Amino acid sequence: MIAAARAALPAWRDAGPAARVGLCLEILARLNARSFEIAHAVMHTTGQGFMMAFQAGGPHAQDRGLEAVAYAWEAMSGVPATARWEKPQGKNPPLVLDKTFRMVPRGVALVIGCATFPTWNGYPGLFASLATGNPVIVKPHPMAVLPLAITVETARAVLKEAGFDPNLMMLAVDTPDAPIAKELAQRPEIRIIDFTGSSEFGAWLEANARQAQVYAEKSGVNPVVIGDFADFAGLARNLAFSLSLYSGQMCTTPQNIFVPRNGIRSGERTLSFDEVAAGLAAAVDKLLGDADRAAEVLGAIQSPATLERLDTARSLGMVVRASGAAAHPRFPDATLRTPLIVAVDARDEDKYAAELFGPISFVIATDGLDQSIELMQRTAREHGAITAAVYADDPAVLRRAGDAAAEAGVALSCNLTGGVFVNQSAAFSDFHATGANPAANASLTDPAFVAGRFRVVQSRVPVPSAAAE
Amino acid sequence: MIAAARAALPAWRDAGPAARVGLCLEILARLNARSFEIAHAVMHTTGQGFMMAFQAGGPHAQDRGLEAVAYAWEAMSGVPATARWEKPQGKNPPLVLDKTFRMVPRGVALVIGCATFPTWNGYPGLFASLATGNPVIVKPHPMAVLPLAITVETARAVLKEAGFDPNLMMLAVDTPDAPIAKELAQRPEIRIIDFTGSSEFGAWLEANARQAQVYAEKSGVNPVVIGDFADFAGLARNLAFSLSLYSGQMCTTPQNIFVPRNGIRSGERTLSFDEVAAGLAAAVDKLLGDADRAAEVLGAIQSPATLERLDTARSLGMVVRASGAAAHPRFPDATLRTPLIVAVDARDEDKYAAELFGPISFVIATDGLDQSIELMQRTAREHGAITAAVYADDPAVLRRAGDAAAEAGVALSCNLTGGVFVNQSAAFSDFHATGANPAANASLTDPAFVAGRFRVVQSRVPVPSAAAE
Repeated sequence: MIAAARAALPAWRDAGPAARVGLCLEILARLNARSFEIAHAVMHTTGQGFMMAFQAGGPHAQDRGLEAVAYAWEAMSGVPATARWEKPQGKNPPLVLDKTFRMVPRGVALVIGCATFPTWNGYPGLFASLATGNPVIVKPHPMAVLPLAITVETARAVLKEAGFDPNLMMLAVDTPDAPIAKELAQRPEIRIIDFTGSSEFGAWLEANARQAQVYAEKSGVNPVVIGDFADFAGLARNLAFSLSLYSGQMCTTPQNIFVPRNGIRSGERTLSFDEVAAGLAAAVDKLLGDADRAAEVLGAIQSPATLERLDTARSLGMVVRASGAAAHPRFPDATLRTPLIVAVDARDEDKYAAELFGPISFVIATDGLDQSIELMQRTAREHGAITAAVYADDPAVLRRAGDAAAEAGVALSCNLTGGVFVNQSAAFSDFHATGANPAANASLTDPAFVAGRFRVVQSRVPVPSAAAE
Repeated sequence: MIAAARAALPAWRDAGPAARVGLCLEILARLNARSFEIAHAVMHTTGQGFMMAFQAGGPHAQDRGLEAVAYAWEAMSGVPATARWEKPQGKNPPLVLDKTFRMVPRGVALVIGCATFPTWNGYPGLFASLATGNPVIVKPHPMAVLPLAITVETARAVLKEAGFDPNLMMLAVDTPDAPIAKELAQRPEIRIIDFTGSSEFGAWLEANARQAQVYAEKSGVNPVVIGDFADFAGLARNLAFSLSLYSGQMCTTPQNIFVPRNGIRSGERTLSFDEVAAGLAAAVDKLLGDADRAAEVLGAIQSPATLERLDTARSLGMVVRASGAAAHPRFPDATLRTPLIVAVDARDEDKYAAELFGPISFVIATDGLDQSIELMQRTAREHGAITAAVYADDPAVLRRAGDAAAEAGVALSCNLTGGVFVNQSAAFSDFHATGANPAANASLTDPAFVAGRFRVVQSRVPVPSAAAE
């Protein structure tokens, strides 16, 4: 497969940026036409509810792919294909050179897909590498093969129609019992790796796949800071949705909700720590009270490991809201779980500072807003975070939280009470992860995400007429 | 020093791209005003002739710094400081968010200077890091401290005048007996390292300073391919200058000159391999025949290690041109050496495939043009190369050489016979190194050189009026 990828490289490299970007756009357009098929594939492999599988797995993933192509185009088109260089030499004729600049790809790229968002997390690296001239081998998560198989099939058809070697995009499928990612990742021919998944494997890649440029989105511990805030109902409604959406199986789901142990002011009222925690639990109950809606919002649990984690997490503190099973109206065999909310103390950092992926969150009693902000910053900096949220009426508090989040390199959402949620990030408007804390070493998508995927090699020759003078 | 750098960071980060870039430009303008002082400092520390020390150490180095600042500005200004995001919601009011985007630096940057081109090779990383918000610790080569000391002094004065902490730029001087680069480079606070120097230390940095983004220019083996070429006199004159300039102590100096063992056609004549080799030797003799000119072109030998290398290299093959001492008219104690040219066979790859830094080159007998091009490509790919050159009247040969150089990731100069030399690379027009072969993992300067030096951290908040609807 690697040999086939390398054989496909020269013609793709020589086709140049415009041809490559054009074909990437065509692949995206064809994927867009298959959005419903991809949505069903994502739903049945990841357990996402259909609406989310359609949005995040279809158009939003395509948006992220398109964004990567746009950045790739910007990076490549910033270098001219040719230039005439002239240097005056006083009374003598000027020095004149014609220069040509070729974009050369790094080599064969590997995309290691994830189990929960195979297309949304896979497309940015896949399209960034392909657009910049690198053949791509896609190694899907063994539990979420079909969405990327459809993707690769679509890409191969477009490439073949345009006269290119379809082996510019290949699917390397493995099984949980016989994984191939480590072997593939260490091959000297693999020069770029895009990975979304566990911190453990991400760190392994960075340490062991040193021949490659590794773009890794790993795990994080996403904090929420709650201060004095009038619209507590809106806060609770909004956070309840964030905690419930896809049963918290998002790298953007909040985990640690910091609340002063002396409670908060909410307009005219004072809410105790227990009232804040209970209010969040009640909002989750209300959101999930309707079985149809609950099934759509929660989706199914993707991995048995998440069920085990959920089972052990309830002993970590005082259970504010117990996780329960839920029935799916159309898929009776689906495994659904509602969010678990556990109350702990700020000093129990050993319990809440590691990521507990899935519908598990903590309401954490702090000495006050200062400690909440300090813990948001420190846990994000030390353990990584992809999102952070703050609720406060006082603009000065928002500014302080903004400074702390900037120090910790984590994107901050302020006072979300309506139809925007902290776990959502929109292509062309939100950067997903920053690369500035341990949760990821790259961002979707900024110039750094594409700039290193190709190199510029120039040649220059004196202009004959000038040389003859 | 690291603590002082970190303390200086927040205000510099918060000043924003425009202020930082403005001050970088001011530093460059003041350095420009000190060009003659810097030229003397470069001459006396590196052994460069005065004209070269002035050009390469002064304005050309400043050009490379300015180029890095320009790329940094382009990368940072591509991200808006603020944006209003609006998403239609059918009959309901749109979702409206105000978003702010902050550039945050990676951390403390380290510039490890080199002995031969302290400013030219040091300024790109120094200015790229500073412009993107990172405090910079400059660790000069212990034999070339003064040029970077003047640079740091100038930068500190500008920063202080503008109300910033001058510790944004500091000089960390060591000695050959008590080097500090390894200890500094491994400090967890050091997040960016720019290095120019040996492959050995560059590889050590990449393996051991894993907490940092390492931009390393290491050594290479620069090839020249000579095919059938009418203007042999121009070829020989041009190459003789390239081999002699600063006694070959440039990372861009040609080392391996591949010539068919059956000779070449040059217009009406056939030149045997020996005649080509002798022609090159004669052109060097002619160039250096005038003692004043020879002193200016050759400069002095920077390091005793180069003298030793030169001494042993003459036994590697048949000496075509012996290296000799030369006297400097103004500096009688200067150690000058003229180029050594040794003839070897293509099969003696163990002799010519490693870099022999200094005035040492090989004329290598090949089976013909095909082997010459193959060896150019393979040695560059395996051992690294920063420059390559080809001489051929046939455009088809130039194209083949161009393809081979692109495959090997090395910049190619074609048919240089006049006033442009393969070892020269002009800011704003030539990329110096490509990052696509072992000679360097970065290029001066492309978007990849600056994009990873900062991250973008955003925050977002619903727009009050829209939220109230």
